[in-house]
Formats: sequence, structure tokens, C-alpha cells
Amino acid sequence: MQTDTYWTRFIAVREQSPLVHNITNFVAMNNTANALLAIGASPAMVHSMDEVEDFVAISQALVINIGTLYSEQVAACKLAAVSASAKNIPWVLDPVGAGATPYRRTVASALTRLKPNVIRGNGSEILTLTREQALNGQGRGVDSLHDSNIALDAARQLATEIGSVIAVTGAVDYVTDGEQVMEIHNGHPLMTRVTGLGCSATAIIGAFLAVEPDALLATVAALAVFGVAGEVAAGWAAGPGSLQVALLDALYGLDEVTFKKHVRIIGR
Amino acid sequence: MQTDTYWTRFIAVREQSPLVHNITNFVAMNNTANALLAIGASPAMVHSMDEVEDFVAISQALVINIGTLYSEQVAACKLAAVSASAKNIPWVLDPVGAGATPYRRTVASALTRLKPNVIRGNGSEILTLTREQALNGQGRGVDSLHDSNIALDAARQLATEIGSVIAVTGAVDYVTDGEQVMEIHNGHPLMTRVTGLGCSATAIIGAFLAVEPDALLATVAALAVFGVAGEVAAGWAAGPGSLQVALLDALYGLDEVTFKKHVRIIGR
Amino acid sequence: MQTDTYWTRFIAVREQSPLVHNITNFVAMNNTANALLAIGASPAMVHSMDEVEDFVAISQALVINIGTLYSEQVAACKLAAVSASAKNIPWVLDPVGAGATPYRRTVASALTRLKPNVIRGNGSEILTLTREQALNGQGRGVDSLHDSNIALDAARQLATEIGSVIAVTGAVDYVTDGEQVMEIHNGHPLMTRVTGLGCSATAIIGAFLAVEPDALLATVAALAVFGVAGEVAAGWAAGPGSLQVALLDALYGLDEVTFKKHVRIIGR
Repeated sequence: MQTDTYWTRFIAVREQSPLVHNITNFVAMNNTANALLAIGASPAMVHSMDEVEDFVAISQALVINIGTLYSEQVAACKLAAVSASAKNIPWVLDPVGAGATPYRRTVASALTRLKPNVIRGNGSEILTLTREQALNGQGRGVDSLHDSNIALDAARQLATEIGSVIAVTGAVDYVTDGEQVMEIHNGHPLMTRVTGLGCSATAIIGAFLAVEPDALLATVAALAVFGVAGEVAAGWAAGPGSLQVALLDALYGLDEVTFKKHVRIIGR
Repeated sequence: MQTDTYWTRFIAVREQSPLVHNITNFVAMNNTANALLAIGASPAMVHSMDEVEDFVAISQALVINIGTLYSEQVAACKLAAVSASAKNIPWVLDPVGAGATPYRRTVASALTRLKPNVIRGNGSEILTLTREQALNGQGRGVDSLHDSNIALDAARQLATEIGSVIAVTGAVDYVTDGEQVMEIHNGHPLMTRVTGLGCSATAIIGAFLAVEPDALLATVAALAVFGVAGEVAAGWAAGPGSLQVALLDALYGLDEVTFKKHVRIIGR
Repeated sequence: MQTDTYWTRFIAVREQSPLVHNITNFVAMNNTANALLAIGASPAMVHSMDEVEDFVAISQALVINIGTLYSEQVAACKLAAVSASAKNIPWVLDPVGAGATPYRRTVASALTRLKPNVIRGNGSEILTLTREQALNGQGRGVDSLHDSNIALDAARQLATEIGSVIAVTGAVDYVTDGEQVMEIHNGHPLMTRVTGLGCSATAIIGAFLAVEPDALLATVAALAVFGVAGEVAAGWAAGPGSLQVALLDALYGLDEVTFKKHVRIIGR
């Protein structure tokens, strides 16, 4: 696929300025909102049980992130997710730290079973979700997973079983719908030293889902834009502090020539 | 009125360093606290029902912002607002997203009826409050509002009915007590791409209310300082990320010559 | 003690990348996480009662900060603290605003009695804790405290009574175990105009405790690294906004030559 396809999706976000409803963690709320503003979307952080159903109904996409979960928020996440699905509003799940505690595993697994359009996580988060899915008797075991590409195999399995697009991000990002696998070779290692950039990436996927119904295409485009902006920003930055700032500037100012020069997407 | 009048209020904030009690949203907490520190005030973010009454009693102003409201916080807002009024401590309300959901409308309306000294919002937020006030049978309908200047007319009506100063911020900021209307022609369009700057503006109004009992004067001075600092910062910034940083530097370093050179306040 | 001793502890943090569990305030969450990432540690912000016990068990240190306390969080703090102590996982307390309200005094005092390995606060916070400790009948009165060095005397008394290391930070930082007193003459006055830097300092103490069992040594090393990075950053900054950014860059890039050139630690 031509890089033009991805760039035009970014233009669509800038032109349509979709309202993106976020139920996200307290660490990343500020820079997630700023990342969405920088790409031209309209962010809202709304998590009260008293209004999530009403708010999701006026939004073009929903982003759920369990980074600093607690029981009331989990309830709000479930209610918002069910409402979004019922109204065909696309939603994306970021299962932060899914494997760290039994509680987190349980919540991440429950949200996964609500069938988000996209799930974005790192390798171990996706692996945890796939294992939990298997333990819940709804999938094959993970014994078949190869050591070499264990997270990608887990992602493909999970995508097939729940019908979602799965993005495994890291040095290389993998995006799969269970059959197709796309690789994005962008981004910069210094990005791992800034908190909440994975959360920003997930939110940006939400914005792209709002303008593009093909979840695989939307996710690849979002991660490509985010990765290219990260590379540009890393070139301006003296460390992780200035990288966080520069990334917002780079997302805001990203132009077609720069994007097409840096983007590296490979279909496997 | 001479610009000197506004500048001396800023000097008063820097010299008196008022303690400003904030019950605000999770997105803007960090940059609101930093904005208050940058102008020389002393911020505190305190929202537990177990201490808001005690804390407001030692503060010089209270700022209430419903951006990420939830039921416990709403209760704390009401308790703090009632306590502040009882002790003649000035308070300012930021009815973020007042019209977005029924819950938000109800809460914003209830807080409005507690008669804040100042309310700052964008045009649609102020319009929502005026309509709610009318629906509660405590005001005229909004039918009389002209299309042209609809938010300003709503602001004047609301100001008259509840006896507060109302600030409608946007490309031009309008501040009214129902009779007088002051316009501030400062700020920069890039400021709309940074999250929480409206929240910072509201908090800065709180700091100025702490040193100046005339709420109209305090509000105009606060918005003028904030707008001028925003213009200065936009001149230094490469995008919204660096603008957020530069704005704090500009607020901190703002001097009299720069302020008087840029400030543009018009009485109507 | 040679400055080499302190520098090698920083190298240990960078090499071991300890997982630091934070239950902290909403204002400082983002920059605390970023400060921990910048020094090479691995931060997690986890505060739900449903998982704090499980999470502390996989962490190398725990940081508790009551800046924006509320009842559920206080319960989570106590549970996490007790769990950490039971497993010999070091923990550090930041009693933000301990004296501001009765509720805050009660909570800070209760957490102090759980015997954190380190407490870091400003002079008035430490003085409050010492007074509360005395009022609870578990210590001498504070009558003996001299006016001149009142916070340091309070710190020594508190350290002796609860067996913790106490750090009183300010223009000069004092660290004591009740007998030894170490002074750190680093940092920069502009740091007081950035919110949450005390919280970041406390979190960094947590990271150093994870790699160094001697709490006095760990605390002095952490505050020295933080203070030197602050000085370096202040040299780059145009105000408090850019200082916040530059501090993360400085922590990330700090090298041995710069550290040894700037560090000024004095044993009394």
C-alpha cells in the first residue's frame, strides 16, 4: 500500500477534528490530551459513571486505558465500552501492565472480552491477554507459540479469537487482524524514557479510528504518524524532557514530505 | 482605565503570594499549579471531603473546575464553595464542558447557584449556564439573546441574575458584571492547541481575586496578564508542546514594559 | 566520604533499573514518573486497594506521597506500607502539607508510625510530624527544640524515635539518622517555582533505596544527584517551564565529571 493512503488518514483527522472520549490513567492524561490536540483531534477526559454513557454517545471514538485503574473507573470503562459497541462507535483498549497483578489481569481480560476494535500493548501485555483468553476456555492454549516471535504469534491468535486488530508496539510495531501483519519501523529508543507515550499512541489510534472504519489501516496509519513524529522530535531533543515537548511540536507540524521521507511500513 | 491599574494587581500577586485552593481536573492539575507558581502565587490542590473546609479557611481564594468531575469531587466542590462564601473568601468557577452531558449541566448549574464571585468559560459553556438558570425558573428565558453576540448577551444576563462577574474567553475575552463590559484582545490562536490553558486562566483569576476585591478589575487584570504572556510565549514556541513550556517562562518573567506594550483592553 | 560513593549508587540505579511502586499525588504523577525514567529506574503508579499488596510484592521500593490524599488512597497507602515492611521492601514517605489541616496531620502521623525507612519533607512538614509524634505520647515534647535550627533538631528527634532516616530539604538539605547529620548544598532557587519537584526528589530516594540498604547513604546520594541535576538544568532554563523540562534532560544525561564538579556534601 502506498504511503499516501496513510497520510490521507492523518489529513482526515486534521480536517474532521473528531471528538475522542478518553477514560485513561492519571499519569498520561495531560500529555494524551495534548497529543490529541497536536494532531488536530478534540480530546475529552470523562470517567464518571454518571456521564460516560451520555458522553460516548456524542463522541466519534472511545479510548480505554487501565494504567491507574480503580474499581469505579473499571465500572465506567465497562459501561462506556458496552455503550460504544452498541452505537457502533469504535473503541481501543490499552491494557497497561496487564500481567502485573491478578486484579489487572482480570480487568484487562474482562475488557478484552468486550471486543474492542483495536488493542494496543507491548509484547508482555498482549501475551498476558492471549493467555487469559485461553484460560477462560475461549481459545487455544498458548503452547503453540514460538519463542522467537512469541508476542506476534500471541497477537495473531488473539486477533483471530476476538475479532479485533492487535498492535504490539516496541522497537518494531506489529499490527495484525489475525491474517495480515503489518510492521512499522519508526520511532526512537529515547521514547521509552518518557512516560505515557504508549498511552498517547493508543489515543491517536482512537482518533484515526474515528475517521477510518478499516481498523487495520487506521492503526497502522496512527502508529506510523506517531513513530515518524517521534523520530523527528528525537532529532531536536537533548533528553527525555525535551523529547516529550518536541513530540507535541512534531505531531502538530508534521508535513507530507517529512512523513513520506521517514515512514517505513512493511507488509509481511 | 490605565494599564497601570492592571499591572499593579499583578505586582500585588507577586508580593503577597496568596494561597490559592484548587479543586480542579486531573488533566490540568500540573500545569495549573505551575501557572500559579509562575505568577508568584502559592497553589494547593486539595479535594478530599475530609479537609476542604479546613483548607479553604486558610486560603485567600478558591478555584473550582469540573473538568473531570465525579460524585465525591462534586460534593467537595459544593462544601468548599459554601465554606468560602461563608468566610468571604472569593471563589471562581470553571464550568468545563457544561453543556456536554445532563450530569455536567446539573452540576454546573448547581455550582452557579452558589454564586461564585467569578465564572470563566467559553461561549457555549456560559450559554449553557444561562439557559439552565432560566430553566430553573430563576431567570428570564434566553429568547432575547441575539445571534450576533449571543454568548456576551448570555453573560450579561447571567451576571445580572446571580450577581457574579462572568468572563467569556475566546479570540477576544469579554468580562462583565452585567452592566460594564470589558474586552481583552490578547492571547494567541496556538493556545487552543494546548490542553488546560483555560483552566490555568481561571486559576490565575483566583489569584488576582485574592489580592483585589473588585472582581471585574481582578478578572480583567488576570486575563490580560495571561493573554500577554501567551503572546510572548507564542513568539518563542515551535508548536503547542513548546508553547506550554514557554507560557510558564513568560508568566514568570513578564515585566512591566512588555505588559504595557502588548496589553489591549477596551471598555465597551 | 568520597563523592565516588554517591556516584556509584547512581550507577547502580541505572544498571539495575529498579521497579519503584508509587502511590502519589495527581499533580506530580507525570513528572515523578518521568524523573524516575530519566535516572534509569522503572516507575509504576498503582493505588487501587485491589492490587497494592500484589504490586508492592514485585517492586524493589515503595514511595508514598499524600499530596492529594483521599480516604481510599490513604487506606491503600497503609496497606502498601505494611506489606512493604513485612517483606523488607524499603519505603519512603513524603508527608506533603502535613500541617495544613487536621486530616492531613492525622494521616501523616499514622503513616509515620508505620516506620518508613526514610521520610522527606520541608521544615514545617517535619516539625509537624515531630509534634504529632510527641502528642501521641510516643516521644518527648518539642520544647527542647532550638529556634535556630528548629527543623533539623526536630528531624534528629523524629529519626531517633521512629528509627527512620529523615531528610529536611530546602536551600540546604539535611539528612539524619538521629546521630549523623549530612548536609547537601546543591539545587537552585528556581526549583521552588516548579510544582512537584519535592515529590520527584522523594521518588528518587525510593529508587536509591532499592539499590542501597544503608538508608542514610541512599538518601544523601539521591538528593545530591537531584540537586546537581537541578543546578545544571537551571543553567539551561529561561524560567520554571523550561526548568521542569531541562531537569529531566539533566537527570538523564548527568555524567560523573559534572556530578563530581558540582556536588557539595558536608558531614556535620
